[in-house]
Amino acid sequence: MGLDMTLPPRDAARMAAALDTLAQDFGPRCQTGAAIRDQHGHTATWMATQPPDAVVWPETTAEVQRIVRVCAAHQVPVIGFGAGTSLEGHVNAPAGGVCVDFTRMNKVLAVHAADMDCTVQPGVTRKALNAHLRDTGLFFPVDPGADASLGGMASTRASGTNAVRYGTMRDAVLALEAVLPSGEIVRTAQRARKTSAGYDLTRLMVGAEGTLGLITELTLRLHGIPEAMSAATCFFPDVDAACNAAIATLQYGLPVARMELLDALTVRAVNAYSHLSLPEAPLLLLEFHGSEAGVAEQAAAFGDIAAEFGANGFDWTTQAEDRARLWQARHDAYWACHGLRPGLKSMSTDVCVPISELATCVAAAQDRAAGLGFAAPILGHVGDGNFHVLVQVDTDDPAEVARAEAFTGWLANLAIAHGGTCTGEHGVGQGKAKYLERELGCGALSMMRAIKRAVDPDNIMNPGKVFALGND
Amino acid sequence: MGLDMTLPPRDAARMAAALDTLAQDFGPRCQTGAAIRDQHGHTATWMATQPPDAVVWPETTAEVQRIVRVCAAHQVPVIGFGAGTSLEGHVNAPAGGVCVDFTRMNKVLAVHAADMDCTVQPGVTRKALNAHLRDTGLFFPVDPGADASLGGMASTRASGTNAVRYGTMRDAVLALEAVLPSGEIVRTAQRARKTSAGYDLTRLMVGAEGTLGLITELTLRLHGIPEAMSAATCFFPDVDAACNAAIATLQYGLPVARMELLDALTVRAVNAYSHLSLPEAPLLLLEFHGSEAGVAEQAAAFGDIAAEFGANGFDWTTQAEDRARLWQARHDAYWACHGLRPGLKSMSTDVCVPISELATCVAAAQDRAAGLGFAAPILGHVGDGNFHVLVQVDTDDPAEVARAEAFTGWLANLAIAHGGTCTGEHGVGQGKAKYLERELGCGALSMMRAIKRAVDPDNIMNPGKVFALGND
Repeated sequence: MGLDMTLPPRDAARMAAALDTLAQDFGPRCQTGAAIRDQHGHTATWMATQPPDAVVWPETTAEVQRIVRVCAAHQVPVIGFGAGTSLEGHVNAPAGGVCVDFTRMNKVLAVHAADMDCTVQPGVTRKALNAHLRDTGLFFPVDPGADASLGGMASTRASGTNAVRYGTMRDAVLALEAVLPSGEIVRTAQRARKTSAGYDLTRLMVGAEGTLGLITELTLRLHGIPEAMSAATCFFPDVDAACNAAIATLQYGLPVARMELLDALTVRAVNAYSHLSLPEAPLLLLEFHGSEAGVAEQAAAFGDIAAEFGANGFDWTTQAEDRARLWQARHDAYWACHGLRPGLKSMSTDVCVPISELATCVAAAQDRAAGLGFAAPILGHVGDGNFHVLVQVDTDDPAEVARAEAFTGWLANLAIAHGGTCTGEHGVGQGKAKYLERELGCGALSMMRAIKRAVDPDNIMNPGKVFALGND
Repeated sequence: MGLDMTLPPRDAARMAAALDTLAQDFGPRCQTGAAIRDQHGHTATWMATQPPDAVVWPETTAEVQRIVRVCAAHQVPVIGFGAGTSLEGHVNAPAGGVCVDFTRMNKVLAVHAADMDCTVQPGVTRKALNAHLRDTGLFFPVDPGADASLGGMASTRASGTNAVRYGTMRDAVLALEAVLPSGEIVRTAQRARKTSAGYDLTRLMVGAEGTLGLITELTLRLHGIPEAMSAATCFFPDVDAACNAAIATLQYGLPVARMELLDALTVRAVNAYSHLSLPEAPLLLLEFHGSEAGVAEQAAAFGDIAAEFGANGFDWTTQAEDRARLWQARHDAYWACHGLRPGLKSMSTDVCVPISELATCVAAAQDRAAGLGFAAPILGHVGDGNFHVLVQVDTDDPAEVARAEAFTGWLANLAIAHGGTCTGEHGVGQGKAKYLERELGCGALSMMRAIKRAVDPDNIMNPGKVFALGND
């Protein structure tokens, strides 16, 4: 269909010329040592590291602009790097190039408490931002688990456990500043909460994975820290019952802040890891944010709904310590799954389907993984229809890695066939590019390519991401 | 700066050739009578009507594709038309062309109750959709006042009174189908609630005002009809106090569904129109959605906050009839303002600022309007920092119209200077195009133009909108 992209050819002379200039401009903030380069191409464990030729640490937008202009002049790739927590190969450098590490652009530039927003540099991590906000009564809700950088989270349209209430990075970013491949600086919007002023460039840059430009500043929506929180947990006879309880809870209009599903295998892993004896059955964990009376009422209302779907062991609380105890299984899940089969590593994949299709897709994934002999615990942000499968893989066994990749491909196509997406929150990167055309069709892919070409005609911004390569 | 666009030249021969083909294909569903053409170029009363050369009523996506292909072949403009409720000249045809009236594409194609979404054709109006949903326990929240078409609302990124709780069309559209100027059909996403799968084409088409393509199908998020609602109203000594109470309410985390401000002049207009005797002072009206206990608690909590800011006459209720009574002033406001000075018409303008700047901007607008001798009542969606000024104008007096236009221009620039936007929810159209560069800067405007050129190189889709013309 002619919808694939090719990588720009490597050219040692051009790269050397660009590096000469950058070394001069940035001194020790431009590095070419192998260890540092490897670190900056390293992503999910199962993907081969593809290091950049150099790493540069800018401190200002003007310095980012300088880097981009030098790279553009020499047609050398530019790859943004936040905290390196991406799971789909976003920071790999398959055509070499210059990695722009935003670690030193880590300032909170302004907090507008009355407007409940703030402006930050892209290297600020979500935990650092929340620490900064501590005394304001406000918080930044998007929580992908890892302490990712906000620039990286915006670039991959990240979300996490509380997206069901507070939305994803798509909703959290009010405006941004970016350096385009031309070296031009774009500000996408002012600080108003709503705008109808032209094309939504904010949303175009969010999720573009650095392929249209580098984000150098973000204005983010904040939320008031709720007066009270409640937590509730219960077990279900099967995934279907858990999902139906989740659907009923949403339809009833309960303002869920988090609603997480752990499948039976994940609960077993948690039991082993944390020396617990939870029933090894699908577990739903909820959190409510609101007034003292409100969150108690909501937890109790959820209990009534869950009972209708055969839930057991319903428990709830508004006390902080007890909440932590109820949610311990979820907090421990990631590392517990890692420990399921000692020596193996987690290949974490992510799909999202309409919630009515969730139970079917989770059950099919469980069956398929079991049939292939994989331990593959499943965790879901069930309120959004989003779930992760943590396939346990011996990464030293290429055949097993290949089988695991085939499984994640099958899962991507399953989600697509059920009206969903091959990536709910991890992004496309290198890993999911080959599924995009099946998901979105030729028309959307060719429109994306037209935009990419219009903004980045020489394909210097993060080449090899989002768009499939000919050989994928 | 070379950021303006020009209109494509009118070419009678090309237009005639296109019309020959369309008349053959669409028979009586292609009309060229003056009355019908005028009706389809008619928008806000103060803008000159610029009728298209013909109006065509497609019934399917394939027919829309056919119209676009014929127009593209002859390089004739294509202008989408929903319900004709736009306020900024979106459906004018300054370069002539073919108006595509979506009235006959008015089917609700699917309702997925478990997923709380639906798929509709663009000619479905928001009231028709809610009538269709009546038995499902679900509703579509976005409410711009007029019974606009959902395609038009998406194209202008419309919102309204309850955006503070439910978001705008930006948030409401999960996916869409559009016919691009090339005739290609694009589907921007599947039905999953979240996705990180490539560029956000959905958000790019929402708010593009038909300049990138025609929307032919929309998948929309729905919400559960709340178990209970409460309403609360009170008067404040001045706009500043009302805005500060609104800010405190949001920071406190009260889940407001609507929060509307009427200034003293609007209240006076309502008193006259509805024979009421409300205090002629800034009025705040709130609505809460939730459980019986929750909405009562929230209204009472708002009362406590309002009292801290000197509110008088606090009243609240959960009863439907009493809610209607409390909100009557808001429901009557639009027509009441029309009646302020008999014979004059409302020129309705819309800006949005960070909420901390709202009181300053409203007060400045009141002063300026009074200084110019205009009756100009102000209504605000105060939770979003969005407000409308309804300037009362004698539209038969060109000098007065010019002074009113100068006032709306001054207001647009005021909002921009205070970190806001020249259009919060009405869109750019023809009326606001000249302010966009000041608001967003050269970089954003040139990126928008690059996208426009990549998708619509011949500028046939709704030319003369969004981008300023050289003579603006």
